[in-house]
Amino acid sequence: MHLDHTHDPQARSWLASANAAGTDFPLQNLPYAVFRRAGSAEAWRGGVAIGDQIVDLAALATSALLQEPAAQGARSCAGEALNDFLALGRPVWSALRHALFALLREDAPAAAQQTVRALLLPQAEAEYRLPTRIGDYTDFYTSIHHARNVGRVVRPDNPLTPNFQWLPIAYHGRASSVVVSGTPFRRPWGQAMPPGAQAPSFGPCRRLDYELEMGFYVGPGNAHGQPVPLAQAEQHIFGMCLLNDWSARDHQFWEMNPLGPFLGKNFCTSVSPWIVTMDALAPYRVPFAHPADEPQPLPYLDEAGNRAQGGIDVQLEVLLQTAQHRQRGLAPQRLSGTSFRHQYWTVAQMLAQHTVGGCNLQTGDLLGTGTISGPTPEEAGAIVELSVGGTRPIAIAATGETRTFLEDGDTVVLRGWCEAPDRARIGFGACSGQVQPALPAVA
Amino acid sequence: MHLDHTHDPQARSWLASANAAGTDFPLQNLPYAVFRRAGSAEAWRGGVAIGDQIVDLAALATSALLQEPAAQGARSCAGEALNDFLALGRPVWSALRHALFALLREDAPAAAQQTVRALLLPQAEAEYRLPTRIGDYTDFYTSIHHARNVGRVVRPDNPLTPNFQWLPIAYHGRASSVVVSGTPFRRPWGQAMPPGAQAPSFGPCRRLDYELEMGFYVGPGNAHGQPVPLAQAEQHIFGMCLLNDWSARDHQFWEMNPLGPFLGKNFCTSVSPWIVTMDALAPYRVPFAHPADEPQPLPYLDEAGNRAQGGIDVQLEVLLQTAQHRQRGLAPQRLSGTSFRHQYWTVAQMLAQHTVGGCNLQTGDLLGTGTISGPTPEEAGAIVELSVGGTRPIAIAATGETRTFLEDGDTVVLRGWCEAPDRARIGFGACSGQVQPALPAVA
Repeated sequence: MHLDHTHDPQARSWLASANAAGTDFPLQNLPYAVFRRAGSAEAWRGGVAIGDQIVDLAALATSALLQEPAAQGARSCAGEALNDFLALGRPVWSALRHALFALLREDAPAAAQQTVRALLLPQAEAEYRLPTRIGDYTDFYTSIHHARNVGRVVRPDNPLTPNFQWLPIAYHGRASSVVVSGTPFRRPWGQAMPPGAQAPSFGPCRRLDYELEMGFYVGPGNAHGQPVPLAQAEQHIFGMCLLNDWSARDHQFWEMNPLGPFLGKNFCTSVSPWIVTMDALAPYRVPFAHPADEPQPLPYLDEAGNRAQGGIDVQLEVLLQTAQHRQRGLAPQRLSGTSFRHQYWTVAQMLAQHTVGGCNLQTGDLLGTGTISGPTPEEAGAIVELSVGGTRPIAIAATGETRTFLEDGDTVVLRGWCEAPDRARIGFGACSGQVQPALPAVA
Repeated sequence: MHLDHTHDPQARSWLASANAAGTDFPLQNLPYAVFRRAGSAEAWRGGVAIGDQIVDLAALATSALLQEPAAQGARSCAGEALNDFLALGRPVWSALRHALFALLREDAPAAAQQTVRALLLPQAEAEYRLPTRIGDYTDFYTSIHHARNVGRVVRPDNPLTPNFQWLPIAYHGRASSVVVSGTPFRRPWGQAMPPGAQAPSFGPCRRLDYELEMGFYVGPGNAHGQPVPLAQAEQHIFGMCLLNDWSARDHQFWEMNPLGPFLGKNFCTSVSPWIVTMDALAPYRVPFAHPADEPQPLPYLDEAGNRAQGGIDVQLEVLLQTAQHRQRGLAPQRLSGTSFRHQYWTVAQMLAQHTVGGCNLQTGDLLGTGTISGPTPEEAGAIVELSVGGTRPIAIAATGETRTFLEDGDTVVLRGWCEAPDRARIGFGACSGQVQPALPAVA
């Protein structure tokens, strides 16, 4: 990936909170969301995070501070979804990034600073919605560590299916139930087959889980019947988010043979409000994780020249806040943490595979990476892995509780960030969701 | 289902083609599509089939021939998708049905006949697009005969998975690649693992198949987290269509363990242009097919009072037209035929199951029934079943060709209709698609 002055870790903003140590949103990040003032009837519109503020792009577009094509980019963010902006492609994305960087940098003209300052809304006063109209949502399965951990629970003798090392496995998810961070959801009802039972039971999920994932949004799409070659794949990716693929393990494992997960997943999927652009992530590209002693990809999936930077070193963690944590004012417990760099397949490989048979991706579509589990047991991205299929309770240190699966009132928070000594921190903010009790009855 | 005078088999139209023996579209049917004059730049709008003509609903809405709420229904069909009409629900659907029936009946006032006649477009001069904006597309797997036939190919010792008899199995499909009948598609590239091979191959599909299915469209949706009880499920179903779930069997069987079909299905799905309403199908309701010697449904899936009319007797057939048929002017070959009445789960059970965990269905969503295979081998709804996994070539009588799977240039046509001596014929028209050669290279 190309690095330029917008990646300079020394660059500072005239907005003090953008220069604060540990901020997710320094001048070098500039992620996108759709927002409005919380609780208001304001129109939803696109914004860019800077420090603890949001730049209102709908307002900026009318300010005369932008030249084309950056101005076109800002105008395309004025609506309630960012699809029009994502469709414009990397030249416009890059132009708006450079223009925002210049306007927010400490050496911006005083008049411009004054104008932009008037367009800011504190993030603490904002609410968010999904950043795009998602036509289709696809979820991959690209962590070999997760696949082995879960596979051991279901198929102890043969945890990894033979296709895993040859292609990025995926299934179609449910677009209608993707929600933005902060949206609570009900524990789902469904069928499960308890071990040894003769007939399935029907009731609220007893093995409710989260899945630590990242997601990425499609920029320009591809025509039906026209695959995207691997070398062009990243031109179709706008940016990335945090994603929680909530899972009802008891329902899922009963229903999924032979056609895959359905009700076990489609009751809710949460995403972070902020999309961090591929441009912002450029300084954190790392070598492709595909181990040399595994089967090497077929030519159409071989990153070849890109192997040195196929991966992305995004640090990730999962926090659990129980009702007791909240009632007693205690800090949430960190359940696990890992990095996206361990993923077996890259985002480019996922997108190329998705289109190789001619499937058309559309602007705004969401692709999930699958659960991200690292190489050690402590780096597992789902509670079914951490509790070894529910057999080893996890101690909640501050409250004295334990968990094998999620309980009502539990809030799961995903966090992600890139950090290195000589580079600006690039954060993703948070993706959170709280488990509400199941409906008392369903019939 | 309620029967009224719009189901009277003796009722006749002033339009002669609507009274012709064997027409799919008599006065009692009145199915919906989105159409325009073929090859024109006219606006797409909703229409209703009558005989060999289409009633232009956008024009009818401005004619003063309709009273509320039928007029509201017609106005909601003026755009390029029928979602607004489908959202209005059964009272408006029924009002418009009754109003159209009265306007098209032979005893309609002469002035009304004259006005309506001026709003007709011959079907032979029309082109169609998808009738709704499909948010999500789901495909079920509800023919026990198909499940056993295909299961024998993959798992000879245990063809039926244990969940089949307990719940309507489904997976999420790809909405973006659903196309209207008549749209050709390219043979897809992909990975396959040939028997005995050590590594997968990559190339154009060698085991291309069709699947005879029906689809149904969601009318009013349900809120996220709020299941639709079985007894209310049909209030959320507007009507049905023919659906061909094209399948690349070699790709599918390599990729689908453990997460289900993905590239093996998502390159194309075809639907008929016409949606036949549940109201029109009312005279063909038949007893629920669930055999008494199979496990009976759990209470939340038990049709109970509706068992006597849970099924629908739609007769279905698959026709194959090869390039040689076309070149030599020969009639297509009938490959198989069956009835939707044999399906193990009903459309109401499918919709209830889909929402039981809280998944929100949205107006215009498409749900497929899964391949419809009847109880005898000749009633199989996919070529992989008819050719027993490609081992028994099918003779194409008129041309002397054989087929185990589909060849380039093959056109598959699905047809469906309801017919009985004392009832009006209710037809679905056709759903066709032609296989185009694969791209010469993909990389």
